[in-house]
Amino acid sequence: MKVLVTGGGGFIGAALMRLLHAHGAIGGRAIDTLVALDRRFPPEVSGIPGIATIEGDLGDADVQRAIAQLKPDVCFHLAAVPGGAAEADPALSRRVNLDATLDLFDTLAGAGVARGAQPPVVVYASTIAVYGSPLPDPVTPSTPTRPPMVYGAHKLACEILLADFTRRGLLDGRSLRLPGIVARPRAPSGLVSAFMSEALHALSAGEPFESPVGPMATAWWMSARRCAQNLLHGAAMDPGGDTQRAWPVPVLRLSMTELVRTLSHVFGVDGERLVRYAPQPAVEAIFGRYPVLDDRASRALGLRDDGTPEALVRRALDDAFQGPDAAAGWG
Amino acid sequence: MKVLVTGGGGFIGAALMRLLHAHGAIGGRAIDTLVALDRRFPPEVSGIPGIATIEGDLGDADVQRAIAQLKPDVCFHLAAVPGGAAEADPALSRRVNLDATLDLFDTLAGAGVARGAQPPVVVYASTIAVYGSPLPDPVTPSTPTRPPMVYGAHKLACEILLADFTRRGLLDGRSLRLPGIVARPRAPSGLVSAFMSEALHALSAGEPFESPVGPMATAWWMSARRCAQNLLHGAAMDPGGDTQRAWPVPVLRLSMTELVRTLSHVFGVDGERLVRYAPQPAVEAIFGRYPVLDDRASRALGLRDDGTPEALVRRALDDAFQGPDAAAGWG
Repeated sequence: MKVLVTGGGGFIGAALMRLLHAHGAIGGRAIDTLVALDRRFPPEVSGIPGIATIEGDLGDADVQRAIAQLKPDVCFHLAAVPGGAAEADPALSRRVNLDATLDLFDTLAGAGVARGAQPPVVVYASTIAVYGSPLPDPVTPSTPTRPPMVYGAHKLACEILLADFTRRGLLDGRSLRLPGIVARPRAPSGLVSAFMSEALHALSAGEPFESPVGPMATAWWMSARRCAQNLLHGAAMDPGGDTQRAWPVPVLRLSMTELVRTLSHVFGVDGERLVRYAPQPAVEAIFGRYPVLDDRASRALGLRDDGTPEALVRRALDDAFQGPDAAAGWG
Repeated sequence: MKVLVTGGGGFIGAALMRLLHAHGAIGGRAIDTLVALDRRFPPEVSGIPGIATIEGDLGDADVQRAIAQLKPDVCFHLAAVPGGAAEADPALSRRVNLDATLDLFDTLAGAGVARGAQPPVVVYASTIAVYGSPLPDPVTPSTPTRPPMVYGAHKLACEILLADFTRRGLLDGRSLRLPGIVARPRAPSGLVSAFMSEALHALSAGEPFESPVGPMATAWWMSARRCAQNLLHGAAMDPGGDTQRAWPVPVLRLSMTELVRTLSHVFGVDGERLVRYAPQPAVEAIFGRYPVLDDRASRALGLRDDGTPEALVRRALDDAFQGPDAAAGWG
């Protein structure tokens, strides 16, 4: 089967490319063509043996033509202008996160119809930013969506439109609402949630960390590797009968205090001494009050969180770490 | 103030143009410029004294430029490819119901910023087709949306994006989810719900009517004039604090039997003899099982249904009918 990963050069995309290459199959069907699309690629992706890359912007007609020729069986759509950058430039967000995404859906649908096979599977990286701020407690499948940023609004619109392509039998869409993923590289990312990764990098290295949220602030946590595993599972799973086709991934809900305690324990540092709390109300309002998530529907589909706080921080910071569930393909 | 009505040549648009011209003000502020935009206009609209018209397609750059120059204080956005036509041509629906609508929001927002005044008020004609089929009973503000047609999917996406423009302070959006509106002229409209208007026309004229839904089928009903009154109120009302900015209009929920009985009484016909029930499962599934609508939030904002079944059918069929609440501007 042919597999396309848009945003394959990005943080989550790179983790997914490595996983797809290592796993070599989706739902028991072997991957014979694996293609990453992005504006540029880090060596860790371009160096993966046997993969192909398309360099360019998703909005370019040439790129859409290349996708039409590829005719992917499965597309993981991760390419996006992230939250903070989208809020700073809503027109850019419309171009990439909305217009080019819909062009991609149209292109994949047209290519699928031309092949006459099963409709292409599209695993869409959506976001918990669709829910709103502050979040109601708990978040359930019937929680009304009130995106607090343009990023979440565009993602939510695309979820709805992907569900409509699915209803029409043109695509087989599965939107996964992702939380902040750790640990991103220590570089400007355009993401307001960047402090979550910085906490892991700094404290695990024994460096001081200034937290923009207080010690009791709770957030939803997931490692990049577990995120990639959920995306892969999202393509293979039987999505059942819910026509909305959008699910939050299960998450670990941890306070900063719990996170600091886990990092202290795992990395042998004095986290309590290294962290200084300087809560910023605007950051705390969005990233510091995550409620209980009713993720039973997601778990029933086989989606998984990182298991334990220890496994989360190890998996996030150590590529070689094998979790206790590695034998089941969720290492 | 300057007021623009897109789709001002259509069925609801014409009713709104007549009402705006007759009323002459929105929320106590006089209308000094009233402009209708559409691809063509019936004489009942083009003949309204003192109005201006823009003839063209909402997606045309020239039309968007004309809107930018007009800099409306209030825009009623009604122009759309209707349900059946959108389902037959999803690409056309994307162009008009999604892309051109977002272009309009961008244009209005840009014109508003250029003026430096209050953000333009946008009353958006959304649809109960956002909810799904079959509808849960009752429909409440927390009912998850699962649009069963491309029309509803595009409308829901635009609701979300209008709420985001509102959050950013660029527009003051108010989406009203409209039910099937009666009585449309007896001509092909592209609307699956056309039978609802046909029932009123045929039975009030003493003609036979074949119903595609059974006698106990319940639907939500509203006259075009009451719909126009709700749109006008939508521009004038204080929308309160709900950031979703989308509300169903209150409706009369009537079974076909109740409707036939009302028409028989008001028009002195033998409706029970004239109607033949030939339920079509596909039509009944979407238009025959409308549940109770929890419209308390909408009523609290001052939105209103037609009052009684008698007032509904009279108002729908007789332009001269004055309802019991005419003195309050809701004739």
